[in-house]
Amino acid sequence: MSASATVRPAAYPFVAIVGQETLKLGLILNVINPGLSGVLIRGEKGTAKSTAVRALADLLPKIKVVKDCPFQSDPENPKAMSPEVLHRYHAGEELPVVERPVKVVDLPISATEDRVVGTLDLEHALKEGKKRIEPGLLALANRGLLYVDEVNLLDDHVVDVLLDSAAMGVNTIEREGISFSHPAAFTLVGTMNPEEGELRPQLLDRFGLCLQVEGLLDPALRVEVVKRRAAYEANPEGYIAQWAGETEALADRIAKAMALCPSVEADDSILLRIAQKSLDMGVDGHRSDIVMLKAAKALAAWHGRTTVLVEDVEEAAALALPHRMRRKPFEDIIAA
Amino acid sequence: MSASATVRPAAYPFVAIVGQETLKLGLILNVINPGLSGVLIRGEKGTAKSTAVRALADLLPKIKVVKDCPFQSDPENPKAMSPEVLHRYHAGEELPVVERPVKVVDLPISATEDRVVGTLDLEHALKEGKKRIEPGLLALANRGLLYVDEVNLLDDHVVDVLLDSAAMGVNTIEREGISFSHPAAFTLVGTMNPEEGELRPQLLDRFGLCLQVEGLLDPALRVEVVKRRAAYEANPEGYIAQWAGETEALADRIAKAMALCPSVEADDSILLRIAQKSLDMGVDGHRSDIVMLKAAKALAAWHGRTTVLVEDVEEAAALALPHRMRRKPFEDIIAA
Amino acid sequence: MSASATVRPAAYPFVAIVGQETLKLGLILNVINPGLSGVLIRGEKGTAKSTAVRALADLLPKIKVVKDCPFQSDPENPKAMSPEVLHRYHAGEELPVVERPVKVVDLPISATEDRVVGTLDLEHALKEGKKRIEPGLLALANRGLLYVDEVNLLDDHVVDVLLDSAAMGVNTIEREGISFSHPAAFTLVGTMNPEEGELRPQLLDRFGLCLQVEGLLDPALRVEVVKRRAAYEANPEGYIAQWAGETEALADRIAKAMALCPSVEADDSILLRIAQKSLDMGVDGHRSDIVMLKAAKALAAWHGRTTVLVEDVEEAAALALPHRMRRKPFEDIIAA
Amino acid sequence: MSASATVRPAAYPFVAIVGQETLKLGLILNVINPGLSGVLIRGEKGTAKSTAVRALADLLPKIKVVKDCPFQSDPENPKAMSPEVLHRYHAGEELPVVERPVKVVDLPISATEDRVVGTLDLEHALKEGKKRIEPGLLALANRGLLYVDEVNLLDDHVVDVLLDSAAMGVNTIEREGISFSHPAAFTLVGTMNPEEGELRPQLLDRFGLCLQVEGLLDPALRVEVVKRRAAYEANPEGYIAQWAGETEALADRIAKAMALCPSVEADDSILLRIAQKSLDMGVDGHRSDIVMLKAAKALAAWHGRTTVLVEDVEEAAALALPHRMRRKPFEDIIAA
Amino acid sequence: MSASATVRPAAYPFVAIVGQETLKLGLILNVINPGLSGVLIRGEKGTAKSTAVRALADLLPKIKVVKDCPFQSDPENPKAMSPEVLHRYHAGEELPVVERPVKVVDLPISATEDRVVGTLDLEHALKEGKKRIEPGLLALANRGLLYVDEVNLLDDHVVDVLLDSAAMGVNTIEREGISFSHPAAFTLVGTMNPEEGELRPQLLDRFGLCLQVEGLLDPALRVEVVKRRAAYEANPEGYIAQWAGETEALADRIAKAMALCPSVEADDSILLRIAQKSLDMGVDGHRSDIVMLKAAKALAAWHGRTTVLVEDVEEAAALALPHRMRRKPFEDIIAA
Amino acid sequence: MSASATVRPAAYPFVAIVGQETLKLGLILNVINPGLSGVLIRGEKGTAKSTAVRALADLLPKIKVVKDCPFQSDPENPKAMSPEVLHRYHAGEELPVVERPVKVVDLPISATEDRVVGTLDLEHALKEGKKRIEPGLLALANRGLLYVDEVNLLDDHVVDVLLDSAAMGVNTIEREGISFSHPAAFTLVGTMNPEEGELRPQLLDRFGLCLQVEGLLDPALRVEVVKRRAAYEANPEGYIAQWAGETEALADRIAKAMALCPSVEADDSILLRIAQKSLDMGVDGHRSDIVMLKAAKALAAWHGRTTVLVEDVEEAAALALPHRMRRKPFEDIIAA
Repeated sequence: MSASATVRPAAYPFVAIVGQETLKLGLILNVINPGLSGVLIRGEKGTAKSTAVRALADLLPKIKVVKDCPFQSDPENPKAMSPEVLHRYHAGEELPVVERPVKVVDLPISATEDRVVGTLDLEHALKEGKKRIEPGLLALANRGLLYVDEVNLLDDHVVDVLLDSAAMGVNTIEREGISFSHPAAFTLVGTMNPEEGELRPQLLDRFGLCLQVEGLLDPALRVEVVKRRAAYEANPEGYIAQWAGETEALADRIAKAMALCPSVEADDSILLRIAQKSLDMGVDGHRSDIVMLKAAKALAAWHGRTTVLVEDVEEAAALALPHRMRRKPFEDIIAA
Repeated sequence: MSASATVRPAAYPFVAIVGQETLKLGLILNVINPGLSGVLIRGEKGTAKSTAVRALADLLPKIKVVKDCPFQSDPENPKAMSPEVLHRYHAGEELPVVERPVKVVDLPISATEDRVVGTLDLEHALKEGKKRIEPGLLALANRGLLYVDEVNLLDDHVVDVLLDSAAMGVNTIEREGISFSHPAAFTLVGTMNPEEGELRPQLLDRFGLCLQVEGLLDPALRVEVVKRRAAYEANPEGYIAQWAGETEALADRIAKAMALCPSVEADDSILLRIAQKSLDMGVDGHRSDIVMLKAAKALAAWHGRTTVLVEDVEEAAALALPHRMRRKPFEDIIAA
Repeated sequence: MSASATVRPAAYPFVAIVGQETLKLGLILNVINPGLSGVLIRGEKGTAKSTAVRALADLLPKIKVVKDCPFQSDPENPKAMSPEVLHRYHAGEELPVVERPVKVVDLPISATEDRVVGTLDLEHALKEGKKRIEPGLLALANRGLLYVDEVNLLDDHVVDVLLDSAAMGVNTIEREGISFSHPAAFTLVGTMNPEEGELRPQLLDRFGLCLQVEGLLDPALRVEVVKRRAAYEANPEGYIAQWAGETEALADRIAKAMALCPSVEADDSILLRIAQKSLDMGVDGHRSDIVMLKAAKALAAWHGRTTVLVEDVEEAAALALPHRMRRKPFEDIIAA
Repeated sequence: MSASATVRPAAYPFVAIVGQETLKLGLILNVINPGLSGVLIRGEKGTAKSTAVRALADLLPKIKVVKDCPFQSDPENPKAMSPEVLHRYHAGEELPVVERPVKVVDLPISATEDRVVGTLDLEHALKEGKKRIEPGLLALANRGLLYVDEVNLLDDHVVDVLLDSAAMGVNTIEREGISFSHPAAFTLVGTMNPEEGELRPQLLDRFGLCLQVEGLLDPALRVEVVKRRAAYEANPEGYIAQWAGETEALADRIAKAMALCPSVEADDSILLRIAQKSLDMGVDGHRSDIVMLKAAKALAAWHGRTTVLVEDVEEAAALALPHRMRRKPFEDIIAA
Repeated sequence: MSASATVRPAAYPFVAIVGQETLKLGLILNVINPGLSGVLIRGEKGTAKSTAVRALADLLPKIKVVKDCPFQSDPENPKAMSPEVLHRYHAGEELPVVERPVKVVDLPISATEDRVVGTLDLEHALKEGKKRIEPGLLALANRGLLYVDEVNLLDDHVVDVLLDSAAMGVNTIEREGISFSHPAAFTLVGTMNPEEGELRPQLLDRFGLCLQVEGLLDPALRVEVVKRRAAYEANPEGYIAQWAGETEALADRIAKAMALCPSVEADDSILLRIAQKSLDMGVDGHRSDIVMLKAAKALAAWHGRTTVLVEDVEEAAALALPHRMRRKPFEDIIAA
Repeated sequence: MSASATVRPAAYPFVAIVGQETLKLGLILNVINPGLSGVLIRGEKGTAKSTAVRALADLLPKIKVVKDCPFQSDPENPKAMSPEVLHRYHAGEELPVVERPVKVVDLPISATEDRVVGTLDLEHALKEGKKRIEPGLLALANRGLLYVDEVNLLDDHVVDVLLDSAAMGVNTIEREGISFSHPAAFTLVGTMNPEEGELRPQLLDRFGLCLQVEGLLDPALRVEVVKRRAAYEANPEGYIAQWAGETEALADRIAKAMALCPSVEADDSILLRIAQKSLDMGVDGHRSDIVMLKAAKALAAWHGRTTVLVEDVEEAAALALPHRMRRKPFEDIIAA
């Protein structure tokens, strides 16, 4: 039972989601540029939030990982290796490589800190008298997406751990005299229903983008939603096959945009516009500028361009600014 | 003492419940179409809420399960097999099959997360030095009904676990380095007395249907309730025998509706009416549309039809919409 | 030290309690008809609440139990046997029988859930490597009375356990992979001082009857209370002996009423009056009707009749309705 | 280290306490008639509350106990024996007897339930593989006084345990399958500073008497307090010796009153006056009447009489009624 | 590692503290007369509160203790011996003696009850199968000063333990069937910043004296503070050496006052003035009178007199009364 | 796995931070004069708070430490040695020395008290039967910087531990009978976002300096921030190399200022100005004066002077006073 077959059902196709273009775009931009550090999806219950995130997995590109490495070490980048792989690398060992798609890792809100951070392998310690690290969800999520449904209900302690790892790209397991660090660079995708409580500003700010999802108001579109859902439920495999072409096309376009993104340029007028945008909106700090630039570049790449246009900035601003605007009355202590 | 004989008394016959047609219909629709994802029964104390759910067990159809499989694996559907059964299936083993009625599993509100999710078998681990999964109530409830009396008093942690499993049809046991998943598709049946606190919107939304139960206002009917109850208590077996014919007839009708349900069709005017209904009522998201369609189809099947009629939509809306209407400040959820 | 001699002092005689006829009647009716599912005694401090319940033990009839069975198995009723006794019964073994009075089991409000439900016998598990059930108070209370002083201060978790068992007549011990059920049919007798907080409606409703106790207002009666108490304290055995005749007479009358009760009949006009009573009083649900009928029958038997009279209904209503009336905003539960 | 020498300093003499006659009387009455079930001493900080209680120990009569019995078994009264002593008694063994003064046992408010109730002796269980009872403070306090300073700060759980034992005269240790009962009849003496919170009514009522202590207002008396305290602190033994005569005289008078008390009579006019008193003062229940009678008898014995006089009732009422008066909204408990 | 060298830096000299005469006096009086039972130092942050207490250690006289006794047993006073030393003393053993200065023991507010009270030595118990007491901070503080910085933030449980020990001069360790008592007579020195919450009255009263510390308002004095601090930090040893003469002179004066204090007399007019003082100020109880007398005597001794003067009383009153004045609604404790 | 390679990415260059001169100065002053006891950085989210602290590490001078000493013992200063090193030093052993830069140690807000203070090495204790100290973060931070991001969210217990150690320069591990002390002198650097709650005054006061960080308001500067960030992210190593010259120049200037600082003088007019400053601003206590002097001296050294000028005092006051001003009712702490 060392490896357990998960039996998750095949996901609803991303391309078959009716409407919700902002939601789809926010997710895609994070795939194109993982430096965007995640997206928070706010919205009423019963919209396609979770469906979209789970569907995203089928669009993700393949990456190379060191075989059997529980930390998803990158065989070509020493800075993205676990201590043990790094040791083998320095010893000149040829690392076995496998290629697999980027993962979407679920972080259930009932997860304990142990499960998230990793812990000591008790079985091994008892049998062998030696400590062994039991990697946690952050090890699994390295170089992938970490998905938290209802992120606003997450335990404060786990939130802190996520913030720490997200900020450093490193996760540290500390227990009974051990301090063990491994790469933990992930794109944080959270959903929340604001009816059930808000996030603290520090966590809000950590999400590069934030978008709002609402139900569709056009009855014809709603009918389409229902029809597609019914078709999918009646025959998941068949339905997925039916959308295979569109899925592949989208995956291709994403892969191309990923490749293009590092070459996208933004001239100084674009940068000034970004800076002025943050100042006009009364946004705290500079993270918004940096995120806007990254999002604008991802958008340019998404449209097959290597130059950021003003329209990219406008679109990026709508995703990067609203959750960073200063809180007004009844909010904060110091007006400075 | 590995298998303990439970000594629950024989249940009061479902068909002998006086009145409460909505309650009975809500339960039956969920049996006909398990895709309805459950029903929440709200109502004052002392109505037949619990009685009806417990009685329902006698009306449930038989299903085939792999013999001795604690996860209720379906011998004919690889996607509904536990990892171990799946392994045997892929190895070409002929799976031993038993037929038994769909189960109603009680989830007491004092149940711990361990008991619900499952855990590590300590005895086995200590004796044999090997981990073994101890299945929980979600394993027991797979392919059946999970019944939670006073669901609004359930611990938040357990609620989260239910939501996760209900959404995915999969339950994951994670403990000390093990991550084990098994199918956990169940119909969630909850009762609650709103006098003792409301559900959070996220959990409310997860119940496909929601209905309100009230005491009977006609003295003659009340007399009938008392008479039947007294007769049952005086001689449970005799009383059950007396209603055996009606019970069997109802079980037959349910079985037929179940068989018919997948063939029920709804034309576009029906779908549009459903969409418009959600928009008119100010309901969040799209789940309401999907549930209404499923409920309407189940109703059509219940009436022996293969076409959804407008009246089915109206009846379905009354069960699917009220608990999804947007909450207004200081307003209670259900006005019905 | 396996069996420890309890050294509780001999109880004050039930028949020597001055006044408090409602209190005494409420208790007696529950003995006559255990189907009444208990009585809640509300009242100011320093009234005879606890004294009466503890005194009741001397009036209780004898029952047959399987010898040494910690679950009080009934040797003549398979449905009231523990799994182990049932197994012996089915194996054709002749069950050893003892006759003993119905027990009154104390549930202290500091009792843990383990002590109430039962648990795993650690000593046995460690020594023998085998699990053994350690029965709890619910096993002890099976076929008897379970007495909770200050029931409104009971821990919520324990309350839930009581409700579950009381509803099903079955107690289930679940721990570390064991699920063990045994009969747990008991009459719940609770006392409470409303000054220290109310019960939640769900628990209130579970008590068949509810009555209010107040101090006596006639100085002469108060003098009698004090005289009797002083006499009892000066010489408990002597005082008990002095009332032995009255005690025996009452025990006889109770035994006769118990025998008569199943034969008591109520015609439809009585049933209609009962139903109308609940509707007039704005009572939730139907449990009130069922309880009123049972109480009225017990009253008839108490008076040596086999027919329920209107006056029985009136008396029953006073005990069965007040705690079930719908709560109004900012209003206390019982106006009586 | 099985028996540890306690090194508490010699107590300040009871007879050297200046003023505070009510306080001294309340304590003495409880010694004369242990049936009074305790006294609650309310008062501002820095009064002689604790000093008086600790000093009382030197005035207490001697009692006979079975040698080495941790439960203070009475060698002459089977009902006041521990199960083990009772067993030896029934086996005809001649019980070894020692005579020692009645004890004052401290119950620190930081005491855990284990320490109060008693528990399982772990050392013995591990070494010998057999359970052994580790008696708690209630075993130590049997047939003595149990003193709780700042009783209003006591943990609720421990309060419940005290109430249970005080009501029954029996303490029950229940743990891991053992249920062990032993006599635990004690006089509960509590002090509290109402500035730090009130007692719940149920616990208040359990104290037979309640009195209010205040600082002395006469400067000359205050000087006397200080002089005596200084003299005592300078030379405790010498000071105690100086008051030895008065101490012995008081101890004698108490011993005589104890002997006389059972013979004190109260005629019906006294009893009626007592009953009327409770009714006039709006006191809950009947406990006040019983306590007043006992206190009045103790007072009569204290004055060397065998007949209760009206003045005894008046004095008893001042000690027995105030804390039992019905609480009015937003009103404090004791107006005295 | 059984004895660990503490590496605390050498303390700033007491005599070099600028101003803060009340603070210094309060501490010195407690050294002269340990019967004063401590001092509470209230004041704003950043004043010399902690510095003064830590500096005090260098002024403390030497005492004789039994060598290696963890309870600081006094070799000349059986009442101040631990049980084990007492046993050796009674056995006629010649006790080895060492002389060392009175200790100042820190009680950090994060200290657990175990650390304060003492506990069972686990290592010894596991290895040797025998229990051994692990003394706590109260053993260490016996016959010394116990210093609690931010005493108002101390855990309630630990506060209770301190109160118990302070009142009795005895600490009792109770755990798993052991009850072990040892002398624990200490002077409690606490500091607090009232901005962070008040003490409960019971704990306030337990401090003999209470004084208020404020920052200096004369700029020249402030410059002196800074200069001295800078000189000390630049060269602690040198700076301490520079003040060695004044330090020795003060230590001498304290030692002389300690010797003189027991002979100081107060005539009745002084005692009356003390009593009247408490009454005039509306102080609760009598502890204030006793403390005032002790403080006045210590003051007389400090001034080399053997007679208390009126001015001593006035000075003592300012230290002993303010924190004992009756709290009025919504009023803060100390107006001084 | 005894030493785990941490894989933190190379830090953004301190000298490349745009603007934020106050922030940079506050950090540098603490490096120049570690006696300043830390700095608290308050500010909106998304400013360069964390980046600056992490970047600081590259500017820190080298220090000599005893090789392999987990407490960072200073080989040349007995007062800064761990007990074990001190023992070797006194035994005349030649201590092995290594030179390494001053460390910046992260204290994550999810760190437990154990991890901060240090604890018992369980593995060693179980295997070898001997206790061994497992040093905590305070051992690691000795002679370095301790960095706490979001210090206002730190657990109260951990805050107390930090305060204790910061005040004494010593950390004490107390557990199961061990009391072990080691030097723990560190500069505490905290950041906080006041939107998420304030610090208690006691902790505020413990930070020598406090400064406020805001986002830049000049769009051109903002563009520069974004450009530099993008350049760094595109090629961290290259970017760092590009700034190597400036980094080295700054490190040099800091090293020179550190050397100069002990020689800086301040005449009495400067000291008087400092004292008057505190009085004018209504600051509590004297710590502000001491800190202002230290900061002014560090500023003089930073500017290459050996005399404090008035302008140094003004600059120091702006960093040392605001967080120490007396809180007025309903008023917030910092007006700056």
